[in-house]
Amino acid sequence: MPSPGKLYIVGIGPGGSEQLTARAREVLEGSDYIIGNDSYITQLAPILAGRTIIRSSMGKEIERAKKSIELARENRVSMVSGGDPGVYGMAGIVLEILDREGADIAWEVVPGVTAAQAAASLLGSPLSGDFVTLSLSDLLTPLEIIEKRLRGAFSMGTPVVLYNPRSRGRPHHFALAMELAGKYRKPDTPIGIVRNAYRDGEEIIVTTLSGIEDVIDKVDMHTTVIVGGEESRIWRNGTDVEGIITPRGYHRKYLY
Amino acid sequence: MPSPGKLYIVGIGPGGSEQLTARAREVLEGSDYIIGNDSYITQLAPILAGRTIIRSSMGKEIERAKKSIELARENRVSMVSGGDPGVYGMAGIVLEILDREGADIAWEVVPGVTAAQAAASLLGSPLSGDFVTLSLSDLLTPLEIIEKRLRGAFSMGTPVVLYNPRSRGRPHHFALAMELAGKYRKPDTPIGIVRNAYRDGEEIIVTTLSGIEDVIDKVDMHTTVIVGGEESRIWRNGTDVEGIITPRGYHRKYLY
Repeated sequence: MPSPGKLYIVGIGPGGSEQLTARAREVLEGSDYIIGNDSYITQLAPILAGRTIIRSSMGKEIERAKKSIELARENRVSMVSGGDPGVYGMAGIVLEILDREGADIAWEVVPGVTAAQAAASLLGSPLSGDFVTLSLSDLLTPLEIIEKRLRGAFSMGTPVVLYNPRSRGRPHHFALAMELAGKYRKPDTPIGIVRNAYRDGEEIIVTTLSGIEDVIDKVDMHTTVIVGGEESRIWRNGTDVEGIITPRGYHRKYLY
Repeated sequence: MPSPGKLYIVGIGPGGSEQLTARAREVLEGSDYIIGNDSYITQLAPILAGRTIIRSSMGKEIERAKKSIELARENRVSMVSGGDPGVYGMAGIVLEILDREGADIAWEVVPGVTAAQAAASLLGSPLSGDFVTLSLSDLLTPLEIIEKRLRGAFSMGTPVVLYNPRSRGRPHHFALAMELAGKYRKPDTPIGIVRNAYRDGEEIIVTTLSGIEDVIDKVDMHTTVIVGGEESRIWRNGTDVEGIITPRGYHRKYLY
């Protein structure tokens, strides 16, 4: 007989409850247990009243995944993941462990707005069509693979979104990414840096590949960086708003 | 003086109101005009009561964008876009025309859950980390650029999400993509095909690169296709659920 519980892996999007989907909210409100990283739980505190909360911390993903599976045998459990659980989130590790344990527990991955999309929306339309999403953290991916992927990504000519772009411990990964970008892109290629999208302390910076050194201190683990593609350009709407547009290709087909 | 109106470009996610963010719903409910493709408007009918609706059809994107800008000079206007407006959606063309016209109109791009994320969530966790998003339609992108991007994408070793994978008019693009995938991936590489994610007629098919021919008729413009990366594998939870997992890399660092 299958377990009476259910395991939800819930994407909460970039910020507080404003960027939550209706389905995510419904699932959170109907759960017996909510498990998640401390900062996500704090953001959602107003809508989690009455649930049993288990706070965890960064770097404890495996422990957290096992705990969620154990509880989901008998209860409705929501594992909270920032952004989308399927993109640098908790879905992978939770389902991997569920599979290894052969646990017959019903599951649902609830998608959410990713950091890439949140950053893009604040810049205007820097992605528009084809793009690549890459993390510069070598915590789980060896540096030589990151380098290979960066080369493949920049060779495509599309925009590239960089997650975990730069930490104090490894500032050289971001320097490497910019160096490789320079082999495939012009110096005036726009770069958007978005910090704390849809959260307190939100900051949006638009620069170019040749200007990145001047704002390098702004690039850290709280930022998402979008490197423009071959056709991306900086865009000024009104006087003080600066953004990035990557034309989709309508200009190749239509007059407007 | 800036215009009194405001232009919202609103991502409604993959399905009906369940996958809508709170912000998207709030914006739609506060708009004077809603403009969008017929099928999206129909999906959202229950929450659009009282708004003035302007239905448009596929292929009329430029006309629709101009209309939204004209109305937004004096009104709150929501341009509705399926999935996320910044990913194969309306944000690019609307902001491009706004820029060309030099119109001083306030704008906001409201992000939403993309087709890639929706498909991924139903398959388990086929993306997990780095990935590429590519459209196989040559309506706005020349075929030689699509081919170059496919080669770059598969060379990275990451999962690749294919939008607009196959239409009656150009079945050879998908055949080309599978042929190129075969140069970089093993025959048992998992492929997920998701049709009508979170909508009526939802269907999920899991196969492999070597098995794709048997289900080729299932691949059309209503599907999103995820080609697994080098580490992706097919996953069976319980007896009848088949999905795809791409390990994030925890196994390289931890025992579990």
